[in-house]
Amino acid sequence: MKLKSYVAGKWVEGTGDGRPFIDPTTGEELGRVDATGVDGAAALEHARTVGGPALAALSFAERGAILRAIADALTANRDAYGEIARKNSGNTVRDAAIDIDGGIATLKVYARLGQSLGDAKVLVEPGEDVLARSGNFAARHFWTSRKGAALQINAFNFPSWGLWEKVAVALLAGSPSVAKPASATAWLSRQMVADVIAAGAVPEGALQIVCGGGKDLVAALQPMDSLAFTGSAATGEMLRSDPAVLRAAPRVTVEADSINATVLGPDAGPDSDVFALAVREVVSALSVKAGQLCTNIRRVLVPAEHADAFRDAVAAKLAGLTVGNPADESVRVGPLVDLDQRQTALEGIAALSAEATVVAGGGIPDQVVGADPQAGAFLAPTLLSCADPTDGRAVHEIEVFGPCATVMPYHGVDQAVALAAHGGGSLALSLFTGDRAVQRDVALGVAPFHGRVMMVDPEVGKDHTGHGIVMPQCVHGGPGRAGGGEELGGLRGLRLHMQRTAVQGAPAALAALADDATEATL
Amino acid sequence: MKLKSYVAGKWVEGTGDGRPFIDPTTGEELGRVDATGVDGAAALEHARTVGGPALAALSFAERGAILRAIADALTANRDAYGEIARKNSGNTVRDAAIDIDGGIATLKVYARLGQSLGDAKVLVEPGEDVLARSGNFAARHFWTSRKGAALQINAFNFPSWGLWEKVAVALLAGSPSVAKPASATAWLSRQMVADVIAAGAVPEGALQIVCGGGKDLVAALQPMDSLAFTGSAATGEMLRSDPAVLRAAPRVTVEADSINATVLGPDAGPDSDVFALAVREVVSALSVKAGQLCTNIRRVLVPAEHADAFRDAVAAKLAGLTVGNPADESVRVGPLVDLDQRQTALEGIAALSAEATVVAGGGIPDQVVGADPQAGAFLAPTLLSCADPTDGRAVHEIEVFGPCATVMPYHGVDQAVALAAHGGGSLALSLFTGDRAVQRDVALGVAPFHGRVMMVDPEVGKDHTGHGIVMPQCVHGGPGRAGGGEELGGLRGLRLHMQRTAVQGAPAALAALADDATEATL
Repeated sequence: MKLKSYVAGKWVEGTGDGRPFIDPTTGEELGRVDATGVDGAAALEHARTVGGPALAALSFAERGAILRAIADALTANRDAYGEIARKNSGNTVRDAAIDIDGGIATLKVYARLGQSLGDAKVLVEPGEDVLARSGNFAARHFWTSRKGAALQINAFNFPSWGLWEKVAVALLAGSPSVAKPASATAWLSRQMVADVIAAGAVPEGALQIVCGGGKDLVAALQPMDSLAFTGSAATGEMLRSDPAVLRAAPRVTVEADSINATVLGPDAGPDSDVFALAVREVVSALSVKAGQLCTNIRRVLVPAEHADAFRDAVAAKLAGLTVGNPADESVRVGPLVDLDQRQTALEGIAALSAEATVVAGGGIPDQVVGADPQAGAFLAPTLLSCADPTDGRAVHEIEVFGPCATVMPYHGVDQAVALAAHGGGSLALSLFTGDRAVQRDVALGVAPFHGRVMMVDPEVGKDHTGHGIVMPQCVHGGPGRAGGGEELGGLRGLRLHMQRTAVQGAPAALAALADDATEATL
Repeated sequence: MKLKSYVAGKWVEGTGDGRPFIDPTTGEELGRVDATGVDGAAALEHARTVGGPALAALSFAERGAILRAIADALTANRDAYGEIARKNSGNTVRDAAIDIDGGIATLKVYARLGQSLGDAKVLVEPGEDVLARSGNFAARHFWTSRKGAALQINAFNFPSWGLWEKVAVALLAGSPSVAKPASATAWLSRQMVADVIAAGAVPEGALQIVCGGGKDLVAALQPMDSLAFTGSAATGEMLRSDPAVLRAAPRVTVEADSINATVLGPDAGPDSDVFALAVREVVSALSVKAGQLCTNIRRVLVPAEHADAFRDAVAAKLAGLTVGNPADESVRVGPLVDLDQRQTALEGIAALSAEATVVAGGGIPDQVVGADPQAGAFLAPTLLSCADPTDGRAVHEIEVFGPCATVMPYHGVDQAVALAAHGGGSLALSLFTGDRAVQRDVALGVAPFHGRVMMVDPEVGKDHTGHGIVMPQCVHGGPGRAGGGEELGGLRGLRLHMQRTAVQGAPAALAALADDATEATL
């Protein structure tokens, strides 16, 4: 099987040998990905000249209806996707649901947002500024759809959610998408797009997919296009530095995995509910999707007096996690996506070990359920403990993209805030405390360095959506190391694909323009 | 005279020979600018460690009071600034007022905005999203001040306004500024900052200035810093491509001069008021500040049937404009900023001449009032006419940064919109029509390519603020060629210096956080 690409209304196959993608449970090759000879420039031009005008002719509500139709087409084929996710991503049933159902749910949220914006094609911000003493001249700010293609380069860990969260936002904003999934797991993305195209859910040109290398796509970017990238900070920097990107200067947003932290409040002793909730969340971070979430907890900041108790509590739970073949119902932790990723993770653990001690896991398990631990990309859930995080560098800078986190003691809330900031900018931080003052000092103290902060207290209990889970209502992205991007957040995500324009004129003329627009802020 | 820099609480002088700055009316050297040995990294670090914490301790209202104090310190020295502007920028009294009073007025607008935000230091967006069925878990979006320095690299044409519009927004947002004025006109910026520092108007570290080269500053940027650049598209691309910028990935905003257009509606015949208003605006574009505004009209799109009449009407008015020494009260058009700029402008006119015919001006005047036209940087107000703008490239891509514009005929409103977009993204477009349908089709048609659109109709008459004038209430910046940046726009400008964070938690916990914040959208 070689994955085809959907470009300019046709499914086309690359002419090269391609890159294999595997079943990480066995190491067996499942097929090949190749875009040799696939015309990336033509895909972008087709988006601009066919998909863009098709979407521009539709209202927000009509675009919302398309998103709903996409969600329906995916729901109809849901079982097949779970099978692909297990085979190609090593996902357990639960892991696959996060990716697949997360994508469908995000589409539905944006479908509803589209409906709420109604028949308009333009947004207008509330408020008018009078600019002349006579009152005859004023200004209002409008948002219109950019006239360009939206190139979306996604990460391997969310072949469904990553694809659809970007398509949903772009399509609602009126931007045609060209999706470039990561080669390792492009199969699921390709299958989903094929089903959506076959269902006739989207206007021609509004959704294309290129399975294989993305160089031709990047080289063909123009000033009114956008580039949304999710992946490693290193690849993000490479894309931002690409000569074609620098020359054309399309809008660029980067969402890079980061060294996210969770903080246990000083009030949360070992016997408290909040302590137990934090332990549960860290264990989840070391098992769900084998830890391969860009938002995942990598650093666990614990009051020094509770650090040993916390470390031991997590380690005890890890011992009970079953690693192995995701087809087996007892398995909680599947393999990493491939052997290269495991090798990189092992090297990362070795680097962290210079500053921290391995408490649990730390390498390839001796045995796993229903698979060969060496042939499959298995990594034992790994907990490290760093006695002196203020001097540490690796523990704040190296992300092991797997089931791996490091516990660190802190002394006083100010130090916890300072240590969190050592990550250089992160996607998400979670805070477990029942103390309002700690909530204020930590949440607002770390906010400049984070795109999202989750506060769990006794009132929230288990009713939260999780440290690692990106909710479509909340902005996703973080400053600095995390890439500086901003996705989702309800209507806020539409900014990437729209242009804000100050329109000055007579109040009556502005009112006439605003009559055809829906009031909103992004 | 060699201009000093204010770094880390001290005025320091460069140790090199420096670059001369001149009186463009005579060509005479006025002094030297040099930052050799001035420690740019120390300036940024002083901003981060001294200025930032000082501003962070203040509420928005208190920061607003600082902006008011800056405005007062400048107003007290206003006459001296007009003198510098005449000598070093070749400004007439009116030209100087746009720069100097424009800066002071912008400071006052932001002072009032600060007052309106009150005692808070944090902003919160309206609305809460419930994320759990139990209702126990929700999200709100907060804005907090970034923890970094704001490096501001300004253009030569607005040594006052360019400086203060950036400082006002950064300071209100809680960001300490390091200003790097253009060497050609750094004298006015330096003098203003010196007066503000001497008046004790700003906390130490919140405002520094480096007069001379900016390489050390750019090289020292860190991820939480920001870089705001105003100037040529070429320099903007150079800065975005700087290895230090790519590595550190600070927030970057670029506001580049662009090939802005004005459009006369098909309804506006030669006898109409709107026609006369458009002629007046184009003449203003060819005289005020000798045409050296980044927002200035460069292309004049006129219905084909009125193109000759419009061209002749403008040309007739240009003949009546007096060029010369700005000290002479009869002079409407002073010199360009220096002889290099004039040489570049002459080369630009030569390039445009391949696609357009010179109707008026086109070179160095034979004689000017009170000066030598060769020794001073004088350029005659220049109007070109391009018969076939759909085939033209230079007329849409080459900006002559002086008193120069090109008239182009169009056939139908759709073509006018398409031609405006040929600029590849612009700062401002103005539209002269009394027809509501034309207003809608042009304003919303060109909006994706523009940061600002000004509509002049009979109701507005002369009560508008001008095509070229940037109002602090309106966003300033444009997509594509114009740099993709966004400045000012009231509170909207604060985005550059603040981080939006989705905070998730119990509704009561979110309410407690929001209690200390002011509700706003940016």
